[in-house]
Amino acid sequence: MSAGGDSIGSDTRPARLAALRDALARADLDAVLVTSRPNVRYLTGFSGSNALLVVTAKDCVLLTDFRYATQVEAELGSSTSVRIESTNLWTGLWAQLATLSGVERIGFESMHLLHRDFARLLEQGARWSWRPTTDLVESRRAVKDAGELAHIECAVAMAEIALRQTVPMLRAGLTETSVAGMLERHLRDAGSEEYPFPSIVASGPRSALPHARASNRVLESGDFVLIDFGAVTAGYCSDITRTFVLGRASDEQREVYDIVREANVRASGSLRVGMTGMAADAVARDYIAARGFGEAFGHSLGHGIGLEVHEAPRLARIVESPLAAGTVVTIEPGIYRAGWGGVRIEDDVFLSDAGPRVLTGFPRELHELS
Amino acid sequence: MSAGGDSIGSDTRPARLAALRDALARADLDAVLVTSRPNVRYLTGFSGSNALLVVTAKDCVLLTDFRYATQVEAELGSSTSVRIESTNLWTGLWAQLATLSGVERIGFESMHLLHRDFARLLEQGARWSWRPTTDLVESRRAVKDAGELAHIECAVAMAEIALRQTVPMLRAGLTETSVAGMLERHLRDAGSEEYPFPSIVASGPRSALPHARASNRVLESGDFVLIDFGAVTAGYCSDITRTFVLGRASDEQREVYDIVREANVRASGSLRVGMTGMAADAVARDYIAARGFGEAFGHSLGHGIGLEVHEAPRLARIVESPLAAGTVVTIEPGIYRAGWGGVRIEDDVFLSDAGPRVLTGFPRELHELS
Repeated sequence: MSAGGDSIGSDTRPARLAALRDALARADLDAVLVTSRPNVRYLTGFSGSNALLVVTAKDCVLLTDFRYATQVEAELGSSTSVRIESTNLWTGLWAQLATLSGVERIGFESMHLLHRDFARLLEQGARWSWRPTTDLVESRRAVKDAGELAHIECAVAMAEIALRQTVPMLRAGLTETSVAGMLERHLRDAGSEEYPFPSIVASGPRSALPHARASNRVLESGDFVLIDFGAVTAGYCSDITRTFVLGRASDEQREVYDIVREANVRASGSLRVGMTGMAADAVARDYIAARGFGEAFGHSLGHGIGLEVHEAPRLARIVESPLAAGTVVTIEPGIYRAGWGGVRIEDDVFLSDAGPRVLTGFPRELHELS
Repeated sequence: MSAGGDSIGSDTRPARLAALRDALARADLDAVLVTSRPNVRYLTGFSGSNALLVVTAKDCVLLTDFRYATQVEAELGSSTSVRIESTNLWTGLWAQLATLSGVERIGFESMHLLHRDFARLLEQGARWSWRPTTDLVESRRAVKDAGELAHIECAVAMAEIALRQTVPMLRAGLTETSVAGMLERHLRDAGSEEYPFPSIVASGPRSALPHARASNRVLESGDFVLIDFGAVTAGYCSDITRTFVLGRASDEQREVYDIVREANVRASGSLRVGMTGMAADAVARDYIAARGFGEAFGHSLGHGIGLEVHEAPRLARIVESPLAAGTVVTIEPGIYRAGWGGVRIEDDVFLSDAGPRVLTGFPRELHELS
């Protein structure tokens, strides 16, 4: 399996480039400079950390450095040509652009270019006309092909294997950090290439912090233990959360848990192609509010996953754009009460014209760890 | 121990802000907008992911969102005031700036501001005059105080504990990924908060790739096994590499290993305050070249470590600036031969007026894994 860019049995990179070229034509651009790493990987398959990519109506040229000479050879398809730069990629870029006739108006990625590099465009690149663009590639990445979906399903399976192996090991007296270590070792044994984000293991009152990581807090009986993590394979991510109770759940814990679970199930089941991100978010939010915890759900319902763990589309209160067929999104309602604790239950869901399919099979029922 | 900003027994943040204010005065700036996360953490102690920091001659104001309301309270000292924004941090920024009298010329961090946000400065922030800056905070961060050095030494100790526990488990038949999992679990058990970079476990021919990660390659007898990884505590990183041989080393493996080891020891021992990065690099590079492998050492000798795993100063062929007292740098010579394998030995070294002190105690002798 190559590091990216492949569907099941066929190379989808030419189609991705063709779609980008259509977008360039519509935006009246002769070319685009791609600096986002996941966008470069999506278009070319190259997974290295240092690259500039130029796409014109005819050409697709990747510039990288000598450290990646072997890797780039193995990863690229025939639709992209490579230039290995011995010094600075930007110096190589000016030389490369000068060879491309008819290229005047060039887009750049406003969300993925530092001011320092933007200044280079205006100085050394002054002979071309530079135009900021947003989401030229990202909007296309939101819709997954069969190969991408297979990678994500594999990353979901890796995460679930690791969680199943970790849960029986959870007990009072462990630190959150050591629980993260157990989980991550199981992720590695399942083949995860890396971690899509720092694993969250948040126990007791810390489970009320939506952006906790893992700390040296020791798990105690009666704690909520919230675990939010993922796996990566062929560059594609999964992102899953489950919340457990260590020992017997109190009535209050059970009540909050059941509300979050019901919100999760309702939101996943309601997803439809054409629905706005706002409407999807409202399914969970309105239910939680109706149960009296509206103020305690302080983040959005979900986000796309793929080559990045946060990508388009967003399921949030302010998103008016409709969901496309072929997206994979998280559904992750939560209730957080400062000082007491919190619950989040997060699944990964594939949306097609046939409706939603929940990729995450790990049980959502309240699990009291003995 | 707070999440940052503290020395042993005293709050060093006021001194850091004072140094930045001196730099602002020298640059004829009324204020600076700090957007780099490690720079924000260094100046204020705040470790969250979403913040804008404004520092003027008198004020230091941090803007963050409601998710961090509890955390920011715990992490900040008295020298910084906080504004929790319910919507967009940038909207809050314009409102905040408007309250600061005498603020006209404001620096921003050219290396840490996306074009998208730069465009905001020119549009919604058009009433102020914006000036790009580089390294205002980074240059100060290169020199560590006693508290920072203690954190780095702790991160080195965590990494060494984990490596000592992992080495006896290495054997033919394991995948690189599973070795990474063992190592990372031991890092977590030692208390590491996260991973400063994706751990590299590169075996056999893959050890020749300076930017390998861990793959599903299976370790075989006779392989080099190169392990490059680190720990993080209180935000501070360590970064260590050791290369082992699985089974008996061949004469050729032993020869290459010994050259790299000698280059490492010479370079560490030669570091002096006032030496240029170029001169430090040359100690290792000239030795390796004299032994006939000059072309095979295809990267720089080292880099600073601290709140980031790559920070100032750099030890590289093109660096003419002198090393300051109080820096902590990696010393990591290597020899890489495509298709055959590679060796890198990397230590973390503290440099003071008393000379270099190697923080890494893990043996550098060739270790043949039985």
